[in-house]
Amino acid sequence: MATFSVKDVLNGKAPSDTTVTVQGWVRTRRDSKAGVSFLALTDGSCFGTLQIVVPNTLGNYDSEVLHLTAGASFAATGNIVPSQGGGQSFEMQAESVQVFGLVEDPDTYPIQPKPHSMEFLRENAHLRARTNIMGAVARVRHSIAQAIHRFFHEQDFYWVNTPILTASDCEGAGEMFRVSTLDMMNFPKTPEGKPDFSKDFFGKETFLTVSGQLNVETYCMALSKVYTFGPTFRAENSNTSRHLAEFWMIEPEVAFADLKQNADLAEAMLKYVFTAVLNERADDMAFFEERVEKGVIAKLQNMIAKPFVRMDYTEAVNILQNCGQKFEYPVSWGTDLQSEHERYLAEKHVNGPVVLQNYPKDIKSFYMRMNDDGKTVAAMDILAPGIGEIIGGSQREERLDVLDARMEEVGLAKEPYYWYRDLRRYGTVPHAGFGLGFERAVSYITGVGNVRDVIPFPRTPGNVRF
Amino acid sequence: MATFSVKDVLNGKAPSDTTVTVQGWVRTRRDSKAGVSFLALTDGSCFGTLQIVVPNTLGNYDSEVLHLTAGASFAATGNIVPSQGGGQSFEMQAESVQVFGLVEDPDTYPIQPKPHSMEFLRENAHLRARTNIMGAVARVRHSIAQAIHRFFHEQDFYWVNTPILTASDCEGAGEMFRVSTLDMMNFPKTPEGKPDFSKDFFGKETFLTVSGQLNVETYCMALSKVYTFGPTFRAENSNTSRHLAEFWMIEPEVAFADLKQNADLAEAMLKYVFTAVLNERADDMAFFEERVEKGVIAKLQNMIAKPFVRMDYTEAVNILQNCGQKFEYPVSWGTDLQSEHERYLAEKHVNGPVVLQNYPKDIKSFYMRMNDDGKTVAAMDILAPGIGEIIGGSQREERLDVLDARMEEVGLAKEPYYWYRDLRRYGTVPHAGFGLGFERAVSYITGVGNVRDVIPFPRTPGNVRF
Repeated sequence: MATFSVKDVLNGKAPSDTTVTVQGWVRTRRDSKAGVSFLALTDGSCFGTLQIVVPNTLGNYDSEVLHLTAGASFAATGNIVPSQGGGQSFEMQAESVQVFGLVEDPDTYPIQPKPHSMEFLRENAHLRARTNIMGAVARVRHSIAQAIHRFFHEQDFYWVNTPILTASDCEGAGEMFRVSTLDMMNFPKTPEGKPDFSKDFFGKETFLTVSGQLNVETYCMALSKVYTFGPTFRAENSNTSRHLAEFWMIEPEVAFADLKQNADLAEAMLKYVFTAVLNERADDMAFFEERVEKGVIAKLQNMIAKPFVRMDYTEAVNILQNCGQKFEYPVSWGTDLQSEHERYLAEKHVNGPVVLQNYPKDIKSFYMRMNDDGKTVAAMDILAPGIGEIIGGSQREERLDVLDARMEEVGLAKEPYYWYRDLRRYGTVPHAGFGLGFERAVSYITGVGNVRDVIPFPRTPGNVRF
Repeated sequence: MATFSVKDVLNGKAPSDTTVTVQGWVRTRRDSKAGVSFLALTDGSCFGTLQIVVPNTLGNYDSEVLHLTAGASFAATGNIVPSQGGGQSFEMQAESVQVFGLVEDPDTYPIQPKPHSMEFLRENAHLRARTNIMGAVARVRHSIAQAIHRFFHEQDFYWVNTPILTASDCEGAGEMFRVSTLDMMNFPKTPEGKPDFSKDFFGKETFLTVSGQLNVETYCMALSKVYTFGPTFRAENSNTSRHLAEFWMIEPEVAFADLKQNADLAEAMLKYVFTAVLNERADDMAFFEERVEKGVIAKLQNMIAKPFVRMDYTEAVNILQNCGQKFEYPVSWGTDLQSEHERYLAEKHVNGPVVLQNYPKDIKSFYMRMNDDGKTVAAMDILAPGIGEIIGGSQREERLDVLDARMEEVGLAKEPYYWYRDLRRYGTVPHAGFGLGFERAVSYITGVGNVRDVIPFPRTPGNVRF
């Protein structure tokens, strides 16, 4: 007996001349007065459910079928026939039903077939994948991740996994988590009374990485086109809908590339990913459109259709200063743009995505390439309507003397970066790259606003359960 | 002027009727008496180098070209022509050469065009991707990772990233790293003098995950077919060629699957991955065959060609006890098999891969499904010639009462596992999964024996530099 997924059955892949088996969980059960039960079966393979028509002539109809409540698991065997009702293509006329597991105390089962608050679902994170919304998020996440790997693979990039455990603090990009195997209550001390990390696992103070970029540059300087796709960590004590302590980043790095090629790559990647999701997950996207963010599909289609406008930071400041719009934070050359400014540029001024380029050096990182004006660096942020910054990147400073001067200016010691500086001593080349926060992308694509609801297991400062 | 990668040029993808540009790093330079220099150009896009023929008539021949030493970076523009010499398909007749970066003090540049010891390359990890062997490893790593994602995607699995930061110790699978943001020198204490983790970032003692399996089961119970592919951590203080503190794992989990289907999936996955690597990275595999492990290609072909033999643990013990072979460790029913036993079974007895099944419960984890004999569990290890265990998995215990009895037997508290137990209270189903250590797979496929040489940035207990 061949087994089929709900997805394949709904797509007409099951044969019509023989019985097949499907299996999964009950979303709803409805019993007709005519002695027939209708089970909506989900197996998570797609958004839709398969209607199973169960006649009361089955031997276990009274003893088992009538006890199938939301969340119970079963297999059904029967013929697949075109559905009589509207809303779905096929249904099953069951000849037998095998129950795997009922729901203990159905009245208190957390995942009822009704809307739940997102907060409630976070509290029941181990079961929330069974809801429409979290199932859809999980499938779209997968589709995005696959599209990213595929995009880079097709363009001959190599995936490099940079270290999670690191002794380097990568430009002080954020608060870091310390990793240790020593006893907190008896931490070894140096004669000066400082923590003696030489006794720790790696013989040095060790952290969780905040970015793989500096590391991956070493591979870029050998393989030319590389990317990371892995977890990064920030110990920021902010319980907001936009920050996660643990999040995945995609960081491509390309040798012989300048800022323009970098922006072209980022634009092509975003369009590729949006296109893939709209094609592959039309079912889930229709749900997000209807229930989460009206217009989310058009938003993505608009991003795909339009060329991304390129604009210098200096021009953007002029626009913002002269647009007549009141902002909470004033704008002046040399200050970082706030979300309200980024969104004004993308939503009001351009009405589409904007690549903002050539920022003042003092608001950007030391490794970004100094422009000839001595004031700006070859940095870029991509601003998208509805979210603001979605990608940040730059051409890297490949000239050792200029890099050294910048490191001195910002107060970085040279020794810990000996390996990064070596790359500039031995066959240096122009190169550029960017970073895309994976969860931010998932949030943007699905319209699910709280990043804690686009990761499998939410956790907040002060609360970790698993 | 179109730019081409070395890979595309060698594959004949560059036009012959116009000039093109290539760019990368010098592997070797040879100057002929006839006034022509031959530069071997690598850009990491493939194993091979492209020969660039540079006439001494170029304006910067004396001033620049003759200073191009191993590791220096340059671009060359010219016509691609069929190569006169043996060994490669095409070469370039350069019309111009642009130098990007020379090598500072070529005599002390670590990566000379000669063999280096692996230990030396570990010490120079930021440059070792420029060697033949580490470049080949990086490309094969990529090919394996892509093949794994593609395999599962084609079979309608969804990728789930389970948390790295975790409060759960997952069956005590290994020594864990603790993660904290508190001050080691003034760690807060409870009134009882114990560490007060309630003050820490997540309000609880937090670790790096050792496995995503228990977590991913929650998604399996909603999406049916899921897999993880992410980093895991073990703080084992063993500086061996087989252990890493940080390594990536692939952990599929399938609802409605039993042990046989689990083994079938693992076998199909390994064969898919080996086939992909042999097809996609023939250049790098030829290098491993010649320089690293004679016979490595036949080893993989043999794994692809043969059906994996299935054998019960009990039968294996009988075979080992009666085979006449002397082992360092004696074999008896109930003891864990050692590497020497596993390799004997795969290499001598079967001469091919073996799926060993149904192990004594006392040497396996609490979550593995109890068999009807009450003595063994539905566990499986896949043993491969030349390495021993390469995959470990099991059918999971889906019956709450049996699970609870096992947890009590091994002394696990129920409360921290409430979420894991909930999965058995609400629509439980049979399910099964396995784990593949990514680095172990890379080591097996490339023949590179030390796992520190198949990761981008090696680190050992007592030594972390980046």
